[in-house]
Amino acid sequence: MINIPKGTKDVLPQDAYKWHYLEDTAREVARLYNIREIRTPVFEHTELFLRGVGDTTDIVNKEMYTFKDKGDRSITLKPEGTAGAARSFIENGMAAGLLPVKMYYIIPAFRYERPQAGRLREFHQFGIEVYGAAGADADAEVISCAALFLDRLGIKGVKLNINSIGCKSCRADYNAALKNYLRPRLGEMCATCRERFEKNPLRILDCKEEGCKAVTRGAPRILDYLCGDCAAHFGKVKELLTESGLEYTVDPDIVRGLDYYTKTVFEFVSDNIGAQGTVCGGGRYDGLIEELGGNPTPAVGFAVGLERLLLLMENSGVPFPADEGPEVFIAGMDERSRAAAFGLVGRLRKSGVSAECDHMGKSVKAQFKYADKIGAKYVIALGSNELECGECNIKCMADGSTRAVKLCDVCECFKS
Amino acid sequence: MINIPKGTKDVLPQDAYKWHYLEDTAREVARLYNIREIRTPVFEHTELFLRGVGDTTDIVNKEMYTFKDKGDRSITLKPEGTAGAARSFIENGMAAGLLPVKMYYIIPAFRYERPQAGRLREFHQFGIEVYGAAGADADAEVISCAALFLDRLGIKGVKLNINSIGCKSCRADYNAALKNYLRPRLGEMCATCRERFEKNPLRILDCKEEGCKAVTRGAPRILDYLCGDCAAHFGKVKELLTESGLEYTVDPDIVRGLDYYTKTVFEFVSDNIGAQGTVCGGGRYDGLIEELGGNPTPAVGFAVGLERLLLLMENSGVPFPADEGPEVFIAGMDERSRAAAFGLVGRLRKSGVSAECDHMGKSVKAQFKYADKIGAKYVIALGSNELECGECNIKCMADGSTRAVKLCDVCECFKS
Repeated sequence: MINIPKGTKDVLPQDAYKWHYLEDTAREVARLYNIREIRTPVFEHTELFLRGVGDTTDIVNKEMYTFKDKGDRSITLKPEGTAGAARSFIENGMAAGLLPVKMYYIIPAFRYERPQAGRLREFHQFGIEVYGAAGADADAEVISCAALFLDRLGIKGVKLNINSIGCKSCRADYNAALKNYLRPRLGEMCATCRERFEKNPLRILDCKEEGCKAVTRGAPRILDYLCGDCAAHFGKVKELLTESGLEYTVDPDIVRGLDYYTKTVFEFVSDNIGAQGTVCGGGRYDGLIEELGGNPTPAVGFAVGLERLLLLMENSGVPFPADEGPEVFIAGMDERSRAAAFGLVGRLRKSGVSAECDHMGKSVKAQFKYADKIGAKYVIALGSNELECGECNIKCMADGSTRAVKLCDVCECFKS
Repeated sequence: MINIPKGTKDVLPQDAYKWHYLEDTAREVARLYNIREIRTPVFEHTELFLRGVGDTTDIVNKEMYTFKDKGDRSITLKPEGTAGAARSFIENGMAAGLLPVKMYYIIPAFRYERPQAGRLREFHQFGIEVYGAAGADADAEVISCAALFLDRLGIKGVKLNINSIGCKSCRADYNAALKNYLRPRLGEMCATCRERFEKNPLRILDCKEEGCKAVTRGAPRILDYLCGDCAAHFGKVKELLTESGLEYTVDPDIVRGLDYYTKTVFEFVSDNIGAQGTVCGGGRYDGLIEELGGNPTPAVGFAVGLERLLLLMENSGVPFPADEGPEVFIAGMDERSRAAAFGLVGRLRKSGVSAECDHMGKSVKAQFKYADKIGAKYVIALGSNELECGECNIKCMADGSTRAVKLCDVCECFKS
């Protein structure tokens, strides 16, 4: 027997409705926000992620599915959704069209991590990208879109934390201050963070090592180093969130340690999933499109991991809409009426009614039992009597009631 | 600039609605047939495809995206959808549950081929798998499901060709006859077919080389070698297709050259796409589950390539439902009313109405122009007047008519 690859998971037929609920809700919220879908390949040239995700990140350094194709190109299964969308924006000259460009994606993504609850090697993300809009209203719109998505799913008790990490110019001042603070404590920090110290000190604030966390607890905070422009932008974001009826907490500890992240960063967190508790993360990354070779273009977005969201919903008892069985099951009592049942099922389906019949040569009793198990709402049994008089009984499985209908009128009966 | 990998294609936001139409139609037809979705990983252990697709096929020999993961496992991006579904059926013990198991998939699949119109290295497939039902009614159901899918998409002029390639026992007789016929003509055939001669002579009938086609033109046909059981099965399939109102042609040239294919094979073909013209192919493969390590289990299904289907629809002018713009655009005339527009758009979205406002600091005139370009059905302009008197005009973009509404009633107005 051949097994599923480690760290991946099937969605079995009986569970698919949960994924449909997640995805249909994502698509509906995107529609409300006038956001269209973008689809990019499952793999991209590796260089895209080196530049677009960042070559100091764990994702790029340790977790990518990178390989050579038969043409000796280095390609990588996408570890996240933003880089591909940004590549497509640039390659297709979207900056020359109507702005902002608002796109969403629902994708499989791949990271070679140690598998654990809600963390798979192939996982799925819903995310949105808004390119071309520099104003705080775009940040607030993206945040409110994530909030409406979580709300529509029926998820309660999620908290919104926001922060600003400024622009290149405030970052330079802050990095200097942070390095001054960290320099005398370098010895207490992990090897990775000692490396990060010169290249990307901001990422040290994200380190999960206890030693590093202890060191950074008293570090200067970037919020105190924002330039006038970034401070005003952050003020406006907060104002518009309030205008949108969204409660938030300013959490100066949220950082994104990559150079192209700018200004607003945010997280939706919950106590109902694992240690870190982040349900959804996003922010502004005005430097990304330029980093990837495009003209400087403001950008803001979020991404949410769907497996983690599903886990949160299951952990907190959020109800899913029920999976529905077929509208009607047609049982056949003998060879001839089984063929008639097959034909009737076909006509019902053609007229838009979900219908089913037996394909296993079951007895009539077993067919009724089966109809019940698959959740059929109505059952019709056909035998020589029914075929001769051209009339049948429709049995309602919920209350056991029956009514007589002409065979030629059955489709009409079920059409809504 | 980093480009998209060769042989892959983005679906841009303005084209996504076509894919939604294809996929929504597939899901709706699956619902009518009481078929649930299965989702399997993008990659599987390579061995699954060696056994499940067949190590004499071009797919496996030349076209697979195979690589080692960081744990030194050989994994392969799936080149088709059946093997993963079958692996999941076995691994999850589905044979012990309700039968038949009816599943569909909509997946990206990967083959390293020379890119051409409608043939990409990453392409997409919709397919169904019915496991556990041995009867001809399952074959007919699968065929009618494919037919209803094509019909619902509005595709006309597609022809159904069917054949039977028998079971292991008829195959043995036939293979002997075929080899007797081919043996004296081996010299006229291509190198690949000379190799196939011993291992898998049936596949020679599928060869596209002119020399081989000339040789096989007069070859014995498997239809003449069917055992009584297979002939009766094929007769019943034809009967049920007629019962379903489906026209078909028996085409003895359709073969599937793999050992686990049995009995019914079929193709839907069209003159509107490329040389081969196959829109959808399928059949019965009663030997597959056993080949993959499961208990012998009858199986039947089809797969359809969605890029090719899209090409066919575009080539033959099949109409797609139009992509809709937002229901309403709210313009803001000044700083304060822009903030009010942002707030109103948020409330509209929360009440389920798709809405949009400007995020680019456009003039009022430019906002109206933009609203028109994005296809907004209604526009409301807010200025200090509107905010003071608490009333606004809703302008219908189709006919230019306006009506006055209280600001607090706007959401109510648009809710359907």
